[in-house]
Amino acid sequence: MPPLRIAIAGALGRMGLQMAVAVEADPRLALAARFHRPGAAGEGLVSRDEALASADVVIDFTTPAASAELAEACAVRGGLALVIGSTGFDDRELAAIAAAAKTIAIVRSGSYSLGLNMLTGLVEQASRALDPGDCDIEILEAHHRHKVDAPSGTALMLGEAAAKGRGVELEAVARRVRDGITGARSQGEIGFAVVRGGSIVGEHSVSFLADGEVLTLAHSAQDRSMFARGAIAAALWVAGRPPGEYDMRDVLGFNAS
Amino acid sequence: MPPLRIAIAGALGRMGLQMAVAVEADPRLALAARFHRPGAAGEGLVSRDEALASADVVIDFTTPAASAELAEACAVRGGLALVIGSTGFDDRELAAIAAAAKTIAIVRSGSYSLGLNMLTGLVEQASRALDPGDCDIEILEAHHRHKVDAPSGTALMLGEAAAKGRGVELEAVARRVRDGITGARSQGEIGFAVVRGGSIVGEHSVSFLADGEVLTLAHSAQDRSMFARGAIAAALWVAGRPPGEYDMRDVLGFNAS
Amino acid sequence: MPPLRIAIAGALGRMGLQMAVAVEADPRLALAARFHRPGAAGEGLVSRDEALASADVVIDFTTPAASAELAEACAVRGGLALVIGSTGFDDRELAAIAAAAKTIAIVRSGSYSLGLNMLTGLVEQASRALDPGDCDIEILEAHHRHKVDAPSGTALMLGEAAAKGRGVELEAVARRVRDGITGARSQGEIGFAVVRGGSIVGEHSVSFLADGEVLTLAHSAQDRSMFARGAIAAALWVAGRPPGEYDMRDVLGFNAS
Amino acid sequence: MPPLRIAIAGALGRMGLQMAVAVEADPRLALAARFHRPGAAGEGLVSRDEALASADVVIDFTTPAASAELAEACAVRGGLALVIGSTGFDDRELAAIAAAAKTIAIVRSGSYSLGLNMLTGLVEQASRALDPGDCDIEILEAHHRHKVDAPSGTALMLGEAAAKGRGVELEAVARRVRDGITGARSQGEIGFAVVRGGSIVGEHSVSFLADGEVLTLAHSAQDRSMFARGAIAAALWVAGRPPGEYDMRDVLGFNAS
Repeated sequence: MPPLRIAIAGALGRMGLQMAVAVEADPRLALAARFHRPGAAGEGLVSRDEALASADVVIDFTTPAASAELAEACAVRGGLALVIGSTGFDDRELAAIAAAAKTIAIVRSGSYSLGLNMLTGLVEQASRALDPGDCDIEILEAHHRHKVDAPSGTALMLGEAAAKGRGVELEAVARRVRDGITGARSQGEIGFAVVRGGSIVGEHSVSFLADGEVLTLAHSAQDRSMFARGAIAAALWVAGRPPGEYDMRDVLGFNAS
Repeated sequence: MPPLRIAIAGALGRMGLQMAVAVEADPRLALAARFHRPGAAGEGLVSRDEALASADVVIDFTTPAASAELAEACAVRGGLALVIGSTGFDDRELAAIAAAAKTIAIVRSGSYSLGLNMLTGLVEQASRALDPGDCDIEILEAHHRHKVDAPSGTALMLGEAAAKGRGVELEAVARRVRDGITGARSQGEIGFAVVRGGSIVGEHSVSFLADGEVLTLAHSAQDRSMFARGAIAAALWVAGRPPGEYDMRDVLGFNAS
Repeated sequence: MPPLRIAIAGALGRMGLQMAVAVEADPRLALAARFHRPGAAGEGLVSRDEALASADVVIDFTTPAASAELAEACAVRGGLALVIGSTGFDDRELAAIAAAAKTIAIVRSGSYSLGLNMLTGLVEQASRALDPGDCDIEILEAHHRHKVDAPSGTALMLGEAAAKGRGVELEAVARRVRDGITGARSQGEIGFAVVRGGSIVGEHSVSFLADGEVLTLAHSAQDRSMFARGAIAAALWVAGRPPGEYDMRDVLGFNAS
Repeated sequence: MPPLRIAIAGALGRMGLQMAVAVEADPRLALAARFHRPGAAGEGLVSRDEALASADVVIDFTTPAASAELAEACAVRGGLALVIGSTGFDDRELAAIAAAAKTIAIVRSGSYSLGLNMLTGLVEQASRALDPGDCDIEILEAHHRHKVDAPSGTALMLGEAAAKGRGVELEAVARRVRDGITGARSQGEIGFAVVRGGSIVGEHSVSFLADGEVLTLAHSAQDRSMFARGAIAAALWVAGRPPGEYDMRDVLGFNAS
């Protein structure tokens, strides 16, 4: 099988640079082209049109506006797929991407960590199967001393996955603080605990605690290389797929029936 | 909804006694009858026939021979389901249970821990989705100082689930020992690590280690009450099911399509 | 060396019964006598006077009043040592014990867990040596779903040990809750995080988080057998010591110079 | 208090560059001079003589030969202290450093991680206090997939600290492998377990497992910044000390009486 040809959008950005390194290191891939916004100057950059003409998959970590426009351009050309890692889209941009996904296959995700996406899917699944009547859910997260909010967005996302598995709303069952005389734990609540210190990149665990046993699903992030790895997994998965808008849950096989 | 009527086989055995306590404590259940082998004397025991006549589900932690015979008796009577927790069946006994499962619904499992069964299912699923090319699997287990074998049977079962997810045989990829000059880790291997000490009931974790991130799925057993809880979950699930032989993976929803 | 002769006070209480079992199982010890409050009837019980006459060390888990009186009686007799596990003493009772400790050696502790006492000592020591300017302290505890207060008394005790190591008051630096927009972590604060669920007996960890590394000191309690083990360690340590009032820190060698 | 004046030897090496960044970021320190081997060219470098003339403490991560020679030069000059992080000294070099330590204060350590040195000291201390008769010691380490030996040197060092605490030789009690029918755990053995995978920088834990409780002392390394931090702690500690050869145990207060 010839290597999959990858074009990298936003090639001068931090993720664009990391993606190029990761693509070049992967024998299943060929770095076909790197491009940046019109007018940007950099060694080895080509125009967007040239890039699209040479690629099976475009990987794009840029801005919402640039990603929406790129999706349209890819759909017009056809014959290639798109992996989008930008975040913060407005409704018009989301509509443009959805329209493009009628013609080409697009993966879009707010986080390309394979581990965190896997964790989220597993948490929802375990939560669906385990009875809230005898199984308590607790979410613990730890981050570096500079983080200014708590619990982390990822911890809340995990809480939402757990709540969804139980068919409830997180806001209705979240227990974000325990201090002083709390009384016994309420059945069905989803608790959060927060640790801050040092230079911890990000640790999350979700525990299901029952009489006599505890099941814990956990993720530890060490550095940002995991995001490039996840985008590559998405590119390998999406190449040759039917048109449609996919996310990392699809890449990981959670939505298969 | 009226409580589910439970009959307990082997009612004088350790698990039979625990089951009776657990059933009585659960408002969704009614302890309809307790029976033991013919000739056994104990307060409140009834005959097997009386027990089957009064129950929606029979829970049976006895011996392979007794369980096979009980399955046949339940199938003859019909109109009830069976949860079997005995282990060590021979082929003839398994055939008898399979034959009975043509008439009634039977759950049979070697372990009724909801947590361990959930863990096993999640491990297989994560293993299927994560690329062996960049994700290493390691299994760690810890048990009390009296345990005489290593790795634990449960650790090996988790290893088999991980191997199955990758479509390989565990024996072909297991790395059971690392000592001295080992060389770098081989791609695709599944490693085992063993801790022994104190009075640890049983801890197992399966880690998926990639560049920059680690996903860990873990279970900690504290005491044997978890088995009664799992048998109750199986009884609640199996009542009213179509005939067939099921296991805890079905109870936990892993085999649903 | 002949076995150390142990007398057990409060022999009909829960701890008294456990102590008897543990003493009989230990080849370094001989169960010399068991006694309970005057008038109590039980197999094998002797009077307090008989018990004191036959013992090298008395182990006492009773009530503050009974322990204070026992200390006085032991001091009058002399030639034996005392291990006190009762809690909740008032000033008068404490004064009586202190007076007795001028004549005999007494170990008194609010908890006989060797592990927790060791943890407390190590935390204070690490806290003393590690610079608050670049090392953050966080305390995490987990308990069963029935616990009604948070953080646990033991977590607060560990916080006090950490604060003492730094020469500050815990109240001045404790951060018991983090929720919402918290801002970055304040230098010098000692954070608490709380998990509640299932049947967890008690888990505590103290982490020292610096740039690039984390040191974690942790304790996990499984059942109450650890308290009998600690009382026996105290009895073996205190036999033959000079008069004085000691605690588990002494038994563990933390106060040696 | 004026900032402590630091000179950095081997200023063009990896640790030399990291040290310069760390010293400049620390308000308690002033980066007084940077030097490298004679003939090396680099911006801002001065000669060794100039460097020694301007510093209170020299921090040296170079080679054994260069460190030994530097120690002699510092001793001849006097009035300054030395922190040595080179490793692999031969006897002649060690003798030269010992001779220099008669005139000046020198800290020399094979690892400047404060956390690992603290862990090692705490392990020895806990091991000394906890009875091998009822407390089992197990050491677990995890490293990235490229590591070629097992257990890690640090795990063995921790094993030696634990053995020293018990007054035994590690070789006599180490249990490096458990596989198959092992029989029950032998009293007094120190077990090792090894995990390999992903990009883990280095994790070590030492557990003391008794009936009903477990004490675990653990360290997790995230990146190499911890070594610069430890060297700075050593520099701040050693400035103004009496002549002598010290190590990180002294810096952390373990050898104080």
